[in-house]
Order: sequence, then C-alpha cells, then structure tokens
Amino acid sequence: MITPEQIELAAGRIASYIRATPTIALEPRAFGSPALITLKLELLQHTGSFKPRGAFNRMLSTRLPEAGVIAASGGNHGAAVAYAARQLGCLAEIFVPEPTPDVKVDRLRRYGARVMLVGASYAEAYLASHERAAQTGALEVHAYDQPEVVAGQGTLGREFESQAPDLETVLVAVGGGGLIGGVAAWYAGRARLIGVEPERCPTLHAAREAGEPVDVEVSGLAADSLGARRIGSLAFQAAQRYVHSVVLVTDEEIRQTQRALWDNLRLIAEPGGAAALAGLRSGKYQPRAGERVGVIVCGGNTDPARVV
Amino acid sequence: MITPEQIELAAGRIASYIRATPTIALEPRAFGSPALITLKLELLQHTGSFKPRGAFNRMLSTRLPEAGVIAASGGNHGAAVAYAARQLGCLAEIFVPEPTPDVKVDRLRRYGARVMLVGASYAEAYLASHERAAQTGALEVHAYDQPEVVAGQGTLGREFESQAPDLETVLVAVGGGGLIGGVAAWYAGRARLIGVEPERCPTLHAAREAGEPVDVEVSGLAADSLGARRIGSLAFQAAQRYVHSVVLVTDEEIRQTQRALWDNLRLIAEPGGAAALAGLRSGKYQPRAGERVGVIVCGGNTDPARVV
Repeated sequence: MITPEQIELAAGRIASYIRATPTIALEPRAFGSPALITLKLELLQHTGSFKPRGAFNRMLSTRLPEAGVIAASGGNHGAAVAYAARQLGCLAEIFVPEPTPDVKVDRLRRYGARVMLVGASYAEAYLASHERAAQTGALEVHAYDQPEVVAGQGTLGREFESQAPDLETVLVAVGGGGLIGGVAAWYAGRARLIGVEPERCPTLHAAREAGEPVDVEVSGLAADSLGARRIGSLAFQAAQRYVHSVVLVTDEEIRQTQRALWDNLRLIAEPGGAAALAGLRSGKYQPRAGERVGVIVCGGNTDPARVV
Repeated sequence: MITPEQIELAAGRIASYIRATPTIALEPRAFGSPALITLKLELLQHTGSFKPRGAFNRMLSTRLPEAGVIAASGGNHGAAVAYAARQLGCLAEIFVPEPTPDVKVDRLRRYGARVMLVGASYAEAYLASHERAAQTGALEVHAYDQPEVVAGQGTLGREFESQAPDLETVLVAVGGGGLIGGVAAWYAGRARLIGVEPERCPTLHAAREAGEPVDVEVSGLAADSLGARRIGSLAFQAAQRYVHSVVLVTDEEIRQTQRALWDNLRLIAEPGGAAALAGLRSGKYQPRAGERVGVIVCGGNTDPARVV
C-alpha cells in the first residue's frame, strides 16, 4: 500500500511543477448543509484538474527514456501527461479511442502531445499504448494504478491537511481511485474519508460489495472524468483500509451542485469536480451539525455553457 | 481621508458576514509576465464581487432605520446591498434606471430587494433614491463615496496583506474608486499601488490630469462594473496620496485576459474583474523581473458564454 512517506517524497519532487491550490472556508449553512465546509479548489491546478500531481511524480521518479512517455486518455489524465511532458522537455504520445471528440484531441495537441487515435474503446486504446511502449521503450504513465501516480495524487491530501488541519471528514470523488487512494493513504484514518461516486460509474461501491475490484458499466454525466471501468488495485487497498463509506449520487444531483457552485461561488466545476460536494449537498452523506467537512473540487474541465 | 484604524474597525464588524477569499501564488512566467503574481480571488465573495464588504460595513456602522436601506445600482453594488439587507433582516429598496435588463432586476429581487425602475440614466435613478431616502428615513448606501463603504472595501487590502505580506506592488481596477481608495488607505505606501482603468471609463486617470474629480464619458466592455462617471472624492484623496500610477487598458486586452484566466486557471472573471490583471498581462504596467505583484480579481458576475 502507498505510505505517507511515499507521498512526502512525491510532494518534494513535484513542488516546483504544481500549484498549491487554495482552500476556502465557507459560512455556516453554505449549500444548505449543517456541516462547516472547507472547499479545496483543485480545479485551479494546471490543466484544470488534480492529475498533474500524479503524472509529474511518475515522470520525476525515474530517468525519462529517449522515447518519452505514453498514456491512454482523452481526458484529464491525458492532458496532464501532455502538460508534464512539455514542462519536462520530453515527448508524449497519448492514445485515445477513435471516437474522441476533436476538442479533446486539439487540447492534447496544444499541450504538445502526439495524439494516436486507435480502437473503438478506451480499452483498445490502452492496449495499443501498452504495445507501443514495449516497442519504443517509452515510460507508461497509468491514469491511476501505479504507485507513483497514487502517491502524487496523495499530495493533494497532504496539502489539504496542512491548509485545514482540523477537518473531521473529507469527501472525495472516485473514478479509477487514484485520488481517493492517495488521499486515504495520506490521512491514514486521521479524518473520516468518504468516497462519492456517480450512480452510473460506481467502481468503488461495486468493488466493496464484491470484496475486490470488478468491472462496472460506465455512463452518465460524469463518465468523462470518473468513468473508469474498475477501481485500481492500489486505490482499493487504501480504500478498504481507510475509506469510511461510499455514497452514490445521481446525475441530477451533480448537475444541481454544478449550478450551485456557480450561483454561490462563481466556480465552474466539471461533473466529476462537483461530485464530492454533491454527496454532501444531496444529503447522501449526512454530517452532524457543525461537523468540519473538507470537500475536494477536483476539476473544472467543462463547457461553462453546460453549467450556467 | 480613510485611516487604517477605520479599516481595522470595519474588518471586525463585517468578519462574520463576508468570506475571507483565498489567494493563489502563480508559477514564474504565469500569463507571460516577468512578475511573480499572486491573485486575490475576490470573485468568490458573496454575490460574486467585493461589494458586500463596503455594504455590510456601512450598514453595521449605525442603527438600521425601520425603513431599511436604499441604494442606486443595477450591478454589483445593488446586489451587495440587497444581499446584506437580507442577511441583516432589513428592507432594501434598490433604484435602477428603466433600461436595466430583466436579468439584473431579477437578480436583485432574488436577493429580496424591492426594485424601483426610475429614470433613463443612473444619475436619475440615484437622484430618485436620494429623494426617497429623505422621505422614508432609509439609510443610503452609496456605491463608493461614503467613508464606511471605502473603509469596508479597504478590508480587502488588509486581508490580502495578511495572506501575502511581501507584495511589492498591488494592481487594482478602478471605477468609482471605492476599492482602490480603501486598499490604498490600508497599504498607505507599504506596497506600490497601481490603478488599472479601461480606456473607456478613465475616472481616476482623468481626475489626476485635472487635479480633481471630473466627469468622464463611460462606455465599453467593463462599463457594467467600472462605469462610474467620476471618481469619488474619498477615493481620490487616498489615490492622490498613495496610488503610484494609473494605467489604461483596452477592451480587447480585458477580453483576452478573461479568456486567459479561463485557459490557465478555470476562472470566469467579469470584465472589471479581469481589468487589473489585464494591466499586467498587456505590459501597460511593466514590473521588473521577479517583482512580487498582487492582482485583485474583484468580480465574476458575467455570462461565462461571453468569456469562453
């Protein structure tokens, strides 16, 4: 399992490449909740999501090969790997399935990546990226299931605790689990960790029911950023030990929370970025009155016209 | 002139009603600038702008009359007064000119205000509000030219300095001057204050040329929030003493800066909220390499579709 020491090391490695994103302590009864909410505004991170933390840590943990790095993702992970590669002056090949929208491909190219459109699904693109890496010697950067990636995402927990040391509970959205795995490994029980998943991509919920990571069907509003087919094994280990419970939210609850973030704070969060707060706002997680609850707003990569 | 003591008092009075908004220190060369930029994210304030600071301070400095409060503004000030009145449980009458768009009137009503549509211009609406206050005994809350209002806006400077104590320079957008007047009075020369105005609402620039507040023509992209016809006398006093210089930015520079804030930080700023950063990003204010520059992003009340 990922250790706090690995996360400390990661934090030192990536410090000059990522932003220490701010937090904001909200007024009592914000979002109608009995909790005292502190938001972690990770949507202000480079590339608009937490993903550069893990990507940089993976890439700074080794000597980068001539062939650069390879990842499979048309979303936040791909953008983070492309961004990190450009900052570190190495090549990035990003594999995405053929149906990926132009806007996402263009974004990867703007970050300087070579984009490979392969296969009909993410799984096929991933397989192709894996084969390509074996040929070229490029470093694979997985979206969530590598120790350096999970430890890198864990730096968000470390940073949040340093900014808001007295949180009793922390809500984290779950997709492949890199973020919650890292954050849970950091807190190691010092705060009650709550995973929040869209009903339509319940990777951690399903894994907890089954006792091991299992494939789930993926769809819905937040599939874009949280739509992994199964939780990573590293994340699952940390979650089994340190995640108190998992709540499921509906697409409508996510959508309303995106709107509420705009109305109350002038923030544009992507569906996956609003999911954790939706867990609180919907009452799916029920804090006691005055409970000090931290909520990670983990991404802002969406078209604002879909929010407002 | 407003004193730091008045600002200290204001900060104590309004503390439980406003948000301490976060700052973010950006990486070297952010926005292509040689400066080391720290942004003050005041667009996360209640109602999406800094205006509640002054409104609350004015309203908490006196015993509120039965008739409540009166203000003239269809924009950020009106929203702030309406919001503050609701929080303090008193009536608010907000006077706006008849051509005010429905979306703004609706917003004031959502905050619980009674909206009075009077006259063809802001000046006429203001005059009507003044006469009405004389009849009813309601407390007038001016948009910028009252000591309690300027001192309230000054709390933003106090908060910013406590968060980023080593700034050498602070850039502030100027409309009626309440914000820069308060912030300049707070810093009192400890940081170099730079006023940034749109070329098409240059109230402080014109007043400095004339040696006293004078009327200017008002138009352009940021007129909505910065479009006062002349700088307030209190603000002008503070600015003459403590504002180092004033730079003018074009609408296109403001627009590009709004877009850059979205691209780099996933922030939606209104034109007036992006103006101060536009002063830096455009090179109109030229920092030396490594200069520690604070920039206030003072509002986010715009349609995101006009930014992205």
